[in-house]
Amino acid sequence: MIGKYPKQLIALISQLKKLPGVGSKTAERFAFQLLKWNEEELQDLGNSLNKLKEELICCENCGCFKVDKSCPFCDAQKRDQSIICILSSPKDVFAIEETRSYSGLYHIIDAIISPYDLYNNPTIDIEKLKKRINTLSIKEAILAFDSTLEGETTSLLLKKELQKIPSLKISRIASGIPVGSHLEYVDGGTLAKSILGRQNF
Amino acid sequence: MIGKYPKQLIALISQLKKLPGVGSKTAERFAFQLLKWNEEELQDLGNSLNKLKEELICCENCGCFKVDKSCPFCDAQKRDQSIICILSSPKDVFAIEETRSYSGLYHIIDAIISPYDLYNNPTIDIEKLKKRINTLSIKEAILAFDSTLEGETTSLLLKKELQKIPSLKISRIASGIPVGSHLEYVDGGTLAKSILGRQNF
Repeated sequence: MIGKYPKQLIALISQLKKLPGVGSKTAERFAFQLLKWNEEELQDLGNSLNKLKEELICCENCGCFKVDKSCPFCDAQKRDQSIICILSSPKDVFAIEETRSYSGLYHIIDAIISPYDLYNNPTIDIEKLKKRINTLSIKEAILAFDSTLEGETTSLLLKKELQKIPSLKISRIASGIPVGSHLEYVDGGTLAKSILGRQNF
Repeated sequence: MIGKYPKQLIALISQLKKLPGVGSKTAERFAFQLLKWNEEELQDLGNSLNKLKEELICCENCGCFKVDKSCPFCDAQKRDQSIICILSSPKDVFAIEETRSYSGLYHIIDAIISPYDLYNNPTIDIEKLKKRINTLSIKEAILAFDSTLEGETTSLLLKKELQKIPSLKISRIASGIPVGSHLEYVDGGTLAKSILGRQNF
């Protein structure tokens, strides 16, 4: 059906299809909804997109978003410079910040590695991270990746590399039962992790 | 968490949330995905949106999209001028065209009416439709709305108004079991409609 649409609409649909989880049908729905927006709303979204890369600048050290040309997450006055948390997305930084349980530095590894990638020389920039750890004399690196196959692979690869730095403690975020959950509904893998990773009490 | 993001990102998320079926979490996912797009892709989508209203012009008669300043759906040479199909969205026009089962005119009623709206003097432009039917001496009007409460209400309201036009036949698209479906899996309402609307065979 898409083939019958005016070409401007086809172009918009194919652009919207690049969003995560958006297939042809959803992209079509979005496009027809956008047609109902008024001129001003469309311009606002259009301009937000056009200026996105220009206005949202990432810190060259940690990879998080800068605010007013300085990075709030690299601020030596406010953040503990002896500990670094390594993650895969700026979004995860905000999720951790929200918990108020961490006040150290961050480092965003842009690529997440699947086991398959290991055979193709993964292009993960570990040298920059190592250099940062050495320069700042960081004492502990926390690996905070998704609990998925890709997250595990990335954690293992980083562990292997970071072990080469003498006296650096390497930790990773705990895996176990989510807060508020009943044991009977927790899957076996999670329960096993929670037993193997049991904590002193 | 959104409150902690840079203001450009908050603006983008609130704009994306206006898309159908997109809540805070999905809008966030879209926004972070958009941050990974390259400059060119973002500009393309931004420009598509900025130019959308300017480039996609609707026909002042039927409400469908014009192509090269003329409306393919109002073309007196190619379309049967004695029958008109009334629907609620340009998207539905393409769905019907795709079936190749109809070659008459179309008329898009922009608003769909819920039963609640009936108490508030619904702002549906029936006069334009009536005038068109009279001018073209149309013989049959097909009501083609969604099989929902709102679709039914709109159909009934239009029927009431169009009945005032002498010698106009009013029909509506058939309701019944979808092609390829098993009777046992069809819901009661649909099955009842298929029996009440049984056809000569």
